[in-house]
Amino acid sequence: MSKIKLDEVDHQILDMLIDNTRTPFTDIAKKLLISAGTVHVRVKKMEDAGIIKGSSLTLDYVKLGYAFIAYVGIFLEKTHQTKFVMERLNEIPNITVAHITTGKFNIFCKVRAKNTKHAKEIIFMIDDIEGVSRTETMISLEESINDKKRLMHSIFNELN
Amino acid sequence: MSKIKLDEVDHQILDMLIDNTRTPFTDIAKKLLISAGTVHVRVKKMEDAGIIKGSSLTLDYVKLGYAFIAYVGIFLEKTHQTKFVMERLNEIPNITVAHITTGKFNIFCKVRAKNTKHAKEIIFMIDDIEGVSRTETMISLEESINDKKRLMHSIFNELN
Amino acid sequence: MSKIKLDEVDHQILDMLIDNTRTPFTDIAKKLLISAGTVHVRVKKMEDAGIIKGSSLTLDYVKLGYAFIAYVGIFLEKTHQTKFVMERLNEIPNITVAHITTGKFNIFCKVRAKNTKHAKEIIFMIDDIEGVSRTETMISLEESINDKKRLMHSIFNELN
Amino acid sequence: MSKIKLDEVDHQILDMLIDNTRTPFTDIAKKLLISAGTVHVRVKKMEDAGIIKGSSLTLDYVKLGYAFIAYVGIFLEKTHQTKFVMERLNEIPNITVAHITTGKFNIFCKVRAKNTKHAKEIIFMIDDIEGVSRTETMISLEESINDKKRLMHSIFNELN
Amino acid sequence: MSKIKLDEVDHQILDMLIDNTRTPFTDIAKKLLISAGTVHVRVKKMEDAGIIKGSSLTLDYVKLGYAFIAYVGIFLEKTHQTKFVMERLNEIPNITVAHITTGKFNIFCKVRAKNTKHAKEIIFMIDDIEGVSRTETMISLEESINDKKRLMHSIFNELN
Amino acid sequence: MSKIKLDEVDHQILDMLIDNTRTPFTDIAKKLLISAGTVHVRVKKMEDAGIIKGSSLTLDYVKLGYAFIAYVGIFLEKTHQTKFVMERLNEIPNITVAHITTGKFNIFCKVRAKNTKHAKEIIFMIDDIEGVSRTETMISLEESINDKKRLMHSIFNELN
Amino acid sequence: MSKIKLDEVDHQILDMLIDNTRTPFTDIAKKLLISAGTVHVRVKKMEDAGIIKGSSLTLDYVKLGYAFIAYVGIFLEKTHQTKFVMERLNEIPNITVAHITTGKFNIFCKVRAKNTKHAKEIIFMIDDIEGVSRTETMISLEESINDKKRLMHSIFNELN
Amino acid sequence: MSKIKLDEVDHQILDMLIDNTRTPFTDIAKKLLISAGTVHVRVKKMEDAGIIKGSSLTLDYVKLGYAFIAYVGIFLEKTHQTKFVMERLNEIPNITVAHITTGKFNIFCKVRAKNTKHAKEIIFMIDDIEGVSRTETMISLEESINDKKRLMHSIFNELN
Repeated sequence: MSKIKLDEVDHQILDMLIDNTRTPFTDIAKKLLISAGTVHVRVKKMEDAGIIKGSSLTLDYVKLGYAFIAYVGIFLEKTHQTKFVMERLNEIPNITVAHITTGKFNIFCKVRAKNTKHAKEIIFMIDDIEGVSRTETMISLEESINDKKRLMHSIFNELN
Repeated sequence: MSKIKLDEVDHQILDMLIDNTRTPFTDIAKKLLISAGTVHVRVKKMEDAGIIKGSSLTLDYVKLGYAFIAYVGIFLEKTHQTKFVMERLNEIPNITVAHITTGKFNIFCKVRAKNTKHAKEIIFMIDDIEGVSRTETMISLEESINDKKRLMHSIFNELN
Repeated sequence: MSKIKLDEVDHQILDMLIDNTRTPFTDIAKKLLISAGTVHVRVKKMEDAGIIKGSSLTLDYVKLGYAFIAYVGIFLEKTHQTKFVMERLNEIPNITVAHITTGKFNIFCKVRAKNTKHAKEIIFMIDDIEGVSRTETMISLEESINDKKRLMHSIFNELN
Repeated sequence: MSKIKLDEVDHQILDMLIDNTRTPFTDIAKKLLISAGTVHVRVKKMEDAGIIKGSSLTLDYVKLGYAFIAYVGIFLEKTHQTKFVMERLNEIPNITVAHITTGKFNIFCKVRAKNTKHAKEIIFMIDDIEGVSRTETMISLEESINDKKRLMHSIFNELN
Repeated sequence: MSKIKLDEVDHQILDMLIDNTRTPFTDIAKKLLISAGTVHVRVKKMEDAGIIKGSSLTLDYVKLGYAFIAYVGIFLEKTHQTKFVMERLNEIPNITVAHITTGKFNIFCKVRAKNTKHAKEIIFMIDDIEGVSRTETMISLEESINDKKRLMHSIFNELN
Repeated sequence: MSKIKLDEVDHQILDMLIDNTRTPFTDIAKKLLISAGTVHVRVKKMEDAGIIKGSSLTLDYVKLGYAFIAYVGIFLEKTHQTKFVMERLNEIPNITVAHITTGKFNIFCKVRAKNTKHAKEIIFMIDDIEGVSRTETMISLEESINDKKRLMHSIFNELN
Repeated sequence: MSKIKLDEVDHQILDMLIDNTRTPFTDIAKKLLISAGTVHVRVKKMEDAGIIKGSSLTLDYVKLGYAFIAYVGIFLEKTHQTKFVMERLNEIPNITVAHITTGKFNIFCKVRAKNTKHAKEIIFMIDDIEGVSRTETMISLEESINDKKRLMHSIFNELN
Repeated sequence: MSKIKLDEVDHQILDMLIDNTRTPFTDIAKKLLISAGTVHVRVKKMEDAGIIKGSSLTLDYVKLGYAFIAYVGIFLEKTHQTKFVMERLNEIPNITVAHITTGKFNIFCKVRAKNTKHAKEIIFMIDDIEGVSRTETMISLEESINDKKRLMHSIFNELN
């Protein structure tokens, strides 16, 4: 698990982009007292190394009508079906996260739905995947934290 | 929970930005056969309405040395401590997601750590928050899906 | 547990009223070939015996904006608080049913709410009752059966 | 889930009927200082809108010899059997309520029986439905609250 | 569930026999100031009514080399196998008690064995009965109370 | 755990007494072709050794109005209260068996009651013992086996 | 379960060897004021009796790159597969301990792996053994005690 | 977690010592065609690096009268007591292994005892440690695998 070496400058660039991916490189350059070309080179280097995998918008799910979040634990009939089931889960866009886990579940996933009725339909789709033996669902009453930026800033500080 | 009305054009703009937030507005304009100004206005409108809350980089946690993911279920002593505990959790950057849930836990959160030892330290920090009675931890053996773009595309398609 | 003796006529009267409490006694009398006075006497007798405790409308909760149903299991700190807690639960109108139970819960109750957010508020009210140690919630995805008439008809048939 | 608009008068009518469905419309009219015809029209309107689905007697189950209440959680073999099993459950009159639920059970239902022996027979009937994999039963030691009128009054007050 | 009417004299006879079944009827008669014939008639009457089903020695299991007690919960594949499995359990003499139960088990039984190794053999015999899906075992560390006489005396006192 | 040595004759005596404790010693003697004195001596020896601890009637609980059986698992606040709680349990005659156990409960006991309501009162008495933190109850739907004679005969056969 | 009689001298020999198996017999002899031949004879006697089954190095797993410990509970389809499954487990060297257990698992084993990914592979190997129905895994965050010497010293002291 | 580099020769030495720690170095030297001095130097190097932490006898617990194995899961009142409780556990020699774990327990440990009664005493000692809130015990019915040599050989082979 070899760590990519990021220096102080890389960190400062990431620290600015993590909050707003559209920050112009010239703004970054000005703030760090380096050339825009350097910013470009550094970002390119981190993209090539696979550290930066892309960028995405943070949208408001509730305003888009997706206010319902459920965590679904999946029991498989046999473990060797894990890969097959994972591929089926990947075809359901409402499953935004899925893990292979220890503990009582084989797979644990996060579902975003419009409401109770919609959640039921998605859970039924999961239940009907070949190899799925049973599911258990936990409903979120409120998503109080969903923020990876705090972690990122903490990682960048630590790496200096 | 009034839905913001997004038209076909809004959707197409979001559909392009969701994959790459740095796509120049001129590229979007060219593709949609509209003016760059219109793109700008539409994006501004969706930002003002709170639909677009921001943008962020997708980084590779493993390459940054954070390969360990755990889900921690928290039992509180009393529910009225929920808000207080949530604020304490918010001070721990390794907790990237936290929900108030139904079922046996009061709060359910996601922890990213470097390794087993680091995870132990974070879990101990959670356990020592005033009001936390007990925690149960589930370790991820592999994060197979972590992708909100599929859902977003599906939402935009549906809204048309 | 002495059973009240209901004869064939009582049964037929109940069988008609159970489906529509507003059925005029004259209609019942005509159908059963008895006098309306007899119907009145019989109903009065069953009311006095406490068999008929009253009547109520069957309303559509969903149309009234109450689409969310949860079952909440309550753990008490000590059993002698059962009566006290039950009185507090009785002050929350959204709790339509509550039982003292065997198994892992001390009290098990049914909650009707408008949505997830409303349910959270009610669950928090329950959690904050003095003597309540912890709760566990199970969400209904669909109320498929809610019908006591089938049982009533079955009882009346059996009693003949 | 569009809410039917009920005005102050509708509410007052419901508020009186909820406590006694046989209250003569002339009594209601007198109390509300409106005509009996208006009461009739309003009730008809609410029946047509499906808000009032009917009326029913409140009978004393214990006096009828049905003192035993159990909640039965049902595990299905596969979720797509839900509809089929629900239809079978609907044929057992002792099952007065049944929900599709989240959590560990697929279906959760309420059973009213005469005594332990009778409950055993009903549970065995459920267990033998095709598609039912297993059941878990929780016995009620006392039904302390069973009252939807408090909720109804609260809803009517709120709607004003 | 009609109760047999036992009078004061019946009770006093049972109260003496429950402690020592070999108490001569003449001793009982002398103590109660009735004739030995009366004692005989009364005992015969209670035997005929099925109240007295027999008598048995209370032996010391530990001294007989049976120091190990386990409670075994049995999950069946389908409930209709209950009778069949019960008959198989009845062929294993080490199972001294077996119940059909509510809760998570279908059948719950008590096993007396010589030691851990012996218990394992008996549990394996149970597990291998056709229709048994799984078992869960709870080991007794000490049998602190095993005494039905306190209950009997309490019943006889109450019946007076 | 030194086993008392029982010879063939002891065994045959126990085998007859276990089925009917009132079998006259002369009958036993005749059957075994030994003297009644020998029977007396042997029984006395087994009583002195503590193998025979007494005798008791087998009564029909249902006919005595005690048709309800529950198993209650007890969680203590601290283990050192075990002895104290056991003494309190011993004062409740309806608790006919109690064990210190492994697994999730500290103490596991059997309760015989008249009906659901009576069971509730006894469970509440247990819950209110100082040191008892919580209880979980499992109801018996049918006591299908309650027979220690099969085990006894099996032990006696094996000892030969 | 006949105990081998070990005298004071045997104990003192074991007490020295348990801490360092390579202690020369002459050193032991000198310390105990006996001849080296006697030490040899005593050790040979304990080896022949099977008390000493061998010796082994205590190596540092972490330094060898095996820092990950998991406990895996195994549910079998049927108990009679226990022996077969145990033989398959024995072919996986990362399983250092395996027990047949009471409670919810049929088999309970300890796994040493290099990291999360490696643990996943081993758990999948276990899951895919014929007869294994399901597994549940508990991850060790730190092995704080792993020391049989304290017990051995305590046994030897007690045996004197 | 830097791995010590072990070469082919180190491995072959460990491979022989792991099976019998008393193998004379001259025997090892002869087999590997190296000098006894080299063996000595290599072993010394691995001891200094902490790879070899010592050696120990493998004794037969059953023959020593310790036939009873239990796994005890410990719930703490608060996590910050972990270190304190671990030190208390370390004073009980019958606890041969103890882990800080994820999942429902805070600490999970292995207990070796003489029999059920002895196990009860040890479990009570654990339960009475300050900070221990509750324990759950799982009894081993048979220790089928207890062998770290397979793993060691596998590690040595892999390192080549």
